Amino acid sequence: MSAREVILLGTSSQVPTRARGHNALFLRWDDLGILFDPGEGTQRQMLLSGIAATQITHIAITHFHGDHCLGLAAMLQRISLDRVPHPVHVLFPESGRVFFERLRYASIYREQANIVPCPLRYRDDSPERLQEVWSRDDVQLFIAPLDHRIECLGYRLQERDGRRMRPDLLREAGVFGPHVRALIDQGSIDVAGRTVALEQVSEPRRGQVFSLVMDTRPCAGALDLAQGADLLVCESTFLSSEAEEAHDYQHMTAAQAATLARDAQARTLLLTHFSQRYTSLDGFVAEASAIFPDVVVGPDFTRVPLPPREEKST
Amino acid sequence: MSAREVILLGTSSQVPTRARGHNALFLRWDDLGILFDPGEGTQRQMLLSGIAATQITHIAITHFHGDHCLGLAAMLQRISLDRVPHPVHVLFPESGRVFFERLRYASIYREQANIVPCPLRYRDDSPERLQEVWSRDDVQLFIAPLDHRIECLGYRLQERDGRRMRPDLLREAGVFGPHVRALIDQGSIDVAGRTVALEQVSEPRRGQVFSLVMDTRPCAGALDLAQGADLLVCESTFLSSEAEEAHDYQHMTAAQAATLARDAQARTLLLTHFSQRYTSLDGFVAEASAIFPDVVVGPDFTRVPLPPREEKST
Repeated sequence: MSAREVILLGTSSQVPTRARGHNALFLRWDDLGILFDPGEGTQRQMLLSGIAATQITHIAITHFHGDHCLGLAAMLQRISLDRVPHPVHVLFPESGRVFFERLRYASIYREQANIVPCPLRYRDDSPERLQEVWSRDDVQLFIAPLDHRIECLGYRLQERDGRRMRPDLLREAGVFGPHVRALIDQGSIDVAGRTVALEQVSEPRRGQVFSLVMDTRPCAGALDLAQGADLLVCESTFLSSEAEEAHDYQHMTAAQAATLARDAQARTLLLTHFSQRYTSLDGFVAEASAIFPDVVVGPDFTRVPLPPREEKST
Repeated sequence: MSAREVILLGTSSQVPTRARGHNALFLRWDDLGILFDPGEGTQRQMLLSGIAATQITHIAITHFHGDHCLGLAAMLQRISLDRVPHPVHVLFPESGRVFFERLRYASIYREQANIVPCPLRYRDDSPERLQEVWSRDDVQLFIAPLDHRIECLGYRLQERDGRRMRPDLLREAGVFGPHVRALIDQGSIDVAGRTVALEQVSEPRRGQVFSLVMDTRPCAGALDLAQGADLLVCESTFLSSEAEEAHDYQHMTAAQAATLARDAQARTLLLTHFSQRYTSLDGFVAEASAIFPDVVVGPDFTRVPLPPREEKST
């Protein structure tokens, strides 16, 4: 099991098919477990993926079309039933708060979990298109607006940039054992009468980035979300042969998703959210990989680890 | 495809398992299609069963615990999406009306179906335990109260008693061709100067009965619902080894369900709604068949036709 990976729980847009469940995905990121857009049946898809309700720390909804949220009702009940001991934050566009409330109390059950509703209001008047909605010491979660028929938010989880210790430089500077920890914590340390600064024995380490671009036409928000992502999960409801339909319904084609990944200089592209009309996903592979080489295309239960960090000296 | 049959769409109580979907079943009865208790994922289970949304004429909910209704949200949206041309009646205990409304409008969609909400109020002050809630020329649908932790209604679909024409007696009486239809419509007909009454050339035909007994302890309502049923679908959440738990949570064991079928003189018993703790259903077969011989025990996608009429002369 990778410490940072995405599991596609369902890859169908609008309605499930024989082979594909309603849309949903799970991001495992160290101790975080973010369930994105649980469509109907996510509870069972999680079971089939070996993911327990206790692994969920956050649920994030991009928008309130059924294939992105109807599974929330059963998941919240399951989180209660399994007595998940930690708080579970549920992020969603504030404009859909009434739907969150209906899904939360869609049937009779004993609520015994700590569910923390986090309605998100995108600030149109801000100069920043990427807006932070949650953070802690090591990561920040951003949203940006997408271009769909109803309000739809994309998400970007970004690890804060850090520094990578260089064993060779540490050795040269004579810093060993517990002094390394002290150096990291304090920023500098005195060794044998000399002061060693953190910068002398380490190099910058860029934080990893996960991006989720769901139901949208190509748009500036999608590009900002995807910028330099190590792993970009993107909807591709249609193939280019249905480009007009994609435009009309405000969705993307595989070619548009691949173009986004290329333009944003993402490292890996994972396509999902396929229209029921496509029995085979081969067309998506062909169309996307012609534009962007590092592409993975569904199917349900696909696991994609975040690609290893690019080790670069500065 | 039988004209009258039950298809188990899901057989799991409370939560789905790897092998079993959330509870749900479909009754096909001539031109009627009644979807009972759609738990989460029913939309996809129907697809896997080859049942289209257009085949649904009624949806009937016994009670508003999640495993009996969470699939309603997606089913109602699917009925709209597929533009089902006929009205779809949705029957449910009126005490749960708020949950029906939340499920109906759980997320954003374009409602373009003729959904007819039919909240059911069981009349405690009536001498009749079985109360008719819907009928037409050929059938009546009854409810009776069950004994669960929240209000729960059982259903009984009962064909009106009729008469079976006897070809031998028709021949003797000289009634042929279009005169037979006229005799049935009018009750009597004049043939060659003599009056032939319907009763002279036919025999009584008892109507067929389908009964659904969901979440409940053994109770008088269950017995009335099941009385003489040709096909009784009954919950059996537990085995007798968990009889105490069954009592505490107001459910039935396989032995109690079989006893109900025997006491009610049902013809065929179909067990469903099994606790997730049981990986195998063998214990249910063994326990029930020791008490009642004509028993079928799940699994998902089981199809059970109503047994053929018992042909009996009077």
